[in-house]
Amino acid sequence: MNKKGLSILMRIRMRPNSAAKLSLSPLTQNELNQTQMNSQVNQSASSNTEREFELVRASMNSAISMNKTEVLDAVLNDFSAGYFNLDHENRRRLLLVLAKEYDLNRTQVRELIKQYLGLEPPSGENAQSSGLEEEGLLSAFYRTERNLRHALNPVYEVLFERLNTHPGGLKFLSSLRADILSILAEENIASLRALDSYLKEKLSTWLSPAALELHQITWDDPASLLEKIVAYEAVHPISNLLDLKRRLGVGRRCFGYLHPAISGEPLIFIEVALLKNVAQTIQEVLWDDPPILECEATCALFYSISSTQPGLSGINLGKFLIKRVITLVKRDMPHITTFATLSPIPGFMQWLLSKLASQSNLAEAEDMSQSSANGSGSTFWENILEPEEEKAIMDSSAGIAAGKSGMEVMLNLLTSTNYEWTNSAELLLVLKPPLMRLCARFLLQEKKRGKALDSVANFHLQNGAMMERINWMADRSEKGLRQSGGIMVNYVYRLENIEEYAQSYFSKGHIHASADLRRYVKPLEEHEERTD
Amino acid sequence: MNKKGLSILMRIRMRPNSAAKLSLSPLTQNELNQTQMNSQVNQSASSNTEREFELVRASMNSAISMNKTEVLDAVLNDFSAGYFNLDHENRRRLLLVLAKEYDLNRTQVRELIKQYLGLEPPSGENAQSSGLEEEGLLSAFYRTERNLRHALNPVYEVLFERLNTHPGGLKFLSSLRADILSILAEENIASLRALDSYLKEKLSTWLSPAALELHQITWDDPASLLEKIVAYEAVHPISNLLDLKRRLGVGRRCFGYLHPAISGEPLIFIEVALLKNVAQTIQEVLWDDPPILECEATCALFYSISSTQPGLSGINLGKFLIKRVITLVKRDMPHITTFATLSPIPGFMQWLLSKLASQSNLAEAEDMSQSSANGSGSTFWENILEPEEEKAIMDSSAGIAAGKSGMEVMLNLLTSTNYEWTNSAELLLVLKPPLMRLCARFLLQEKKRGKALDSVANFHLQNGAMMERINWMADRSEKGLRQSGGIMVNYVYRLENIEEYAQSYFSKGHIHASADLRRYVKPLEEHEERTD
Repeated sequence: MNKKGLSILMRIRMRPNSAAKLSLSPLTQNELNQTQMNSQVNQSASSNTEREFELVRASMNSAISMNKTEVLDAVLNDFSAGYFNLDHENRRRLLLVLAKEYDLNRTQVRELIKQYLGLEPPSGENAQSSGLEEEGLLSAFYRTERNLRHALNPVYEVLFERLNTHPGGLKFLSSLRADILSILAEENIASLRALDSYLKEKLSTWLSPAALELHQITWDDPASLLEKIVAYEAVHPISNLLDLKRRLGVGRRCFGYLHPAISGEPLIFIEVALLKNVAQTIQEVLWDDPPILECEATCALFYSISSTQPGLSGINLGKFLIKRVITLVKRDMPHITTFATLSPIPGFMQWLLSKLASQSNLAEAEDMSQSSANGSGSTFWENILEPEEEKAIMDSSAGIAAGKSGMEVMLNLLTSTNYEWTNSAELLLVLKPPLMRLCARFLLQEKKRGKALDSVANFHLQNGAMMERINWMADRSEKGLRQSGGIMVNYVYRLENIEEYAQSYFSKGHIHASADLRRYVKPLEEHEERTD
Repeated sequence: MNKKGLSILMRIRMRPNSAAKLSLSPLTQNELNQTQMNSQVNQSASSNTEREFELVRASMNSAISMNKTEVLDAVLNDFSAGYFNLDHENRRRLLLVLAKEYDLNRTQVRELIKQYLGLEPPSGENAQSSGLEEEGLLSAFYRTERNLRHALNPVYEVLFERLNTHPGGLKFLSSLRADILSILAEENIASLRALDSYLKEKLSTWLSPAALELHQITWDDPASLLEKIVAYEAVHPISNLLDLKRRLGVGRRCFGYLHPAISGEPLIFIEVALLKNVAQTIQEVLWDDPPILECEATCALFYSISSTQPGLSGINLGKFLIKRVITLVKRDMPHITTFATLSPIPGFMQWLLSKLASQSNLAEAEDMSQSSANGSGSTFWENILEPEEEKAIMDSSAGIAAGKSGMEVMLNLLTSTNYEWTNSAELLLVLKPPLMRLCARFLLQEKKRGKALDSVANFHLQNGAMMERINWMADRSEKGLRQSGGIMVNYVYRLENIEEYAQSYFSKGHIHASADLRRYVKPLEEHEERTD
């Protein structure tokens, strides 16, 4: 990078954790909204006049209904510029206009359905004896079928298609979808949800891996691109220039997927550390120096994967990226035999705290103090602590947290300000067994519609990884403690198993895990398949 | 290019005119078939056993029905390798299996239609008063609509989608479609035509200009790419290395569209000559040397545009290529102000000869010798020659060609062996007026479904060009004389008119032509709009 590039980079205002991340720690819909909508809305500080809205609406109409003319490019530019200038409420209004007034011509659909039902469909027998006349009838049938298929495409398809071939249009569509997702997170509007589902299908097609270029991001890349890495890295924020330089230097790799229509900014990127062993804490990855010699590495550790486009949420680019990076690294460095991640468990604490709270309440309401020994009493009540865990917690928490049961005490300990429990060697020792055990249970057994409840787990499992190990106090950052109780998990990718594991997870919800991990949940192993 | 590259290039067997060309001289369906099918079929000299066919059919079935597994890549490879190994007849059988057995689940479509018709579609009024329940009903409606849309997609879509994301798959799909077109040219099979139409839609989406890279092809490009230029240039075949080098050298440009998934081979390329004036003959472009200084050029002449993929027939990549090349050349060389073509008129002689033959026959049958003066007699009969043209032809053809009427004599002259008429200064003089006039009439007035009958004219007009000038004896090659009577035409592109002209041609069939050209057809100007 030349001097100018470097000086530009120095001026980057390091955004703290403001961008969207995916996968190793996927954003919830809500987090996504906040970041996306905010960052765009503040482009227009004041609210819009009705005239401004009508102008954008008119340019949207032209962009859809106009036949191909030289003016079209100008209209599309007007429309996207006008759109960005609208405030939240007017964007919402405009998107509803698009979803409701530009969907299907349902009169035409019904007419075509009538026509279609009146025609004889092709059958195996007819096909044998078909003469010229028969082929003519079949042609009419296929034509009507095609017309019906086309008629079922909403009118707004035209806008999406035109924007896709317009310079900057794909990026604009991605912003548009980010806004849509943010609106849908607040209110459920059927027509807008239908539009979102259609747009997502389109984006998936346009962003097929065949159209994406795998690029290794290095310190020689333009500052304008590196700036994006800094801005969008959200799993483990990049704190300064040295930090960035190390992540691109010896013993580290960074790969991104670029799309020709969205230049100078990867859609998704992954950060890799070359290590002797699978890391157990994020500190080893981010702060240990000097790095080992690359020729001594046996493990490629994926420690961060970030998506730059909130509007591409739900389009799994990560899977293809991981597969290609593994293949690439394997080819260049045959001495690397292990491909693993060090990942957060963003859903763990939320699940655990709500479990502890509801069980404590149940216990209190029914005064379970006597019957708690045998764990019966209420069908809904379950002591999620083992007897010896409960005893240890009650014994060691005197003076720090109160409560009638082990669960209540544990809840109070975990929610104490500044994560006080992490400063006491004794509490750490006492809490480790139940937290590790319950974390394994959460990862292996808690499901939603047959899939892992934790979003990061779901991401890696659907990509074909297996769960290898959970690591105690692996991330002591505020975020790490808040989301995962400081625990991190290693997922392992084995090229030879990726597709098989992905398949059995997809079809049967089967989670492949190491024996070590399964040992934590031994007693429940039998009902592993249960889902909620 | 290094020595090795050059020596490889030297060994290229220059294929005479065997590849498919588009646009400046688009291939007819029939020409396309011959080249495509032949070149592929001879990969398998002997015919296939039933077992070979069944193996490919089985791998096709796996490629469609298999869920995502590591094996899928292998299956797709098996399928494409197996397919290429099939002979013509077995490819035809396989494609029919694909078209008929993997189209729609029509039982499901009919069920969904029934469901769909039973649901209340959204209406403007309901939308106002919609509560939660209403949104729920609407969601169900949109879901059924989407399900119906999906159900109307044929099952073979899966195969196309999977091949598109498979390395080499896009190219394979293009070959597959070339075979389909070749079969459809021989026999009209409704199911296969429906498959073709579907595949064409898909290919159009995947090959949107946004996914294509404009590349200037130079002598520094790899031999493997230049080899393709030699092989696919079919408008004016490249005869030797010197010829190729000149086309990439001073005063010349060559641009191609590359797709990331089809590496090292442009999908379409265009050859440009930088000249002082719009060339009137192809000799000036191909053989005149030395070229002028580039800074003195005022005209960029497009003298050849060739498509390399017969399977992409009907997908207009040329339009975008021409527009982008004009923009690029304009930016780099502001002194270039004229963008024109020198194009063949491949349909002219075929049209003229059949016109002359049918009119001569009519004349003979009804013995029009007396009434020919006033041109009436039969509603179908028309003397396409002017009286003075007829007289000149009759006067000068004695001893060379016989005939009862000017038209019959002209027919005999034009079809004489070795184009003898072009060797006689007197005949050239006599034939020039009627040939030029009838050529202008053919270009300006002969239409099919409202579009120019000549395929090259139709290509440029739909791209937004205007007809500027026709040039006498502009291409004296055998092909030039056979197709166009040696006449070539200059189409002119003006960036500021491109979209307007394209639009008025598209919607009203309006052909923009220079006053010079229109003068040829003055008497008929009034009925210019008529079509047949």
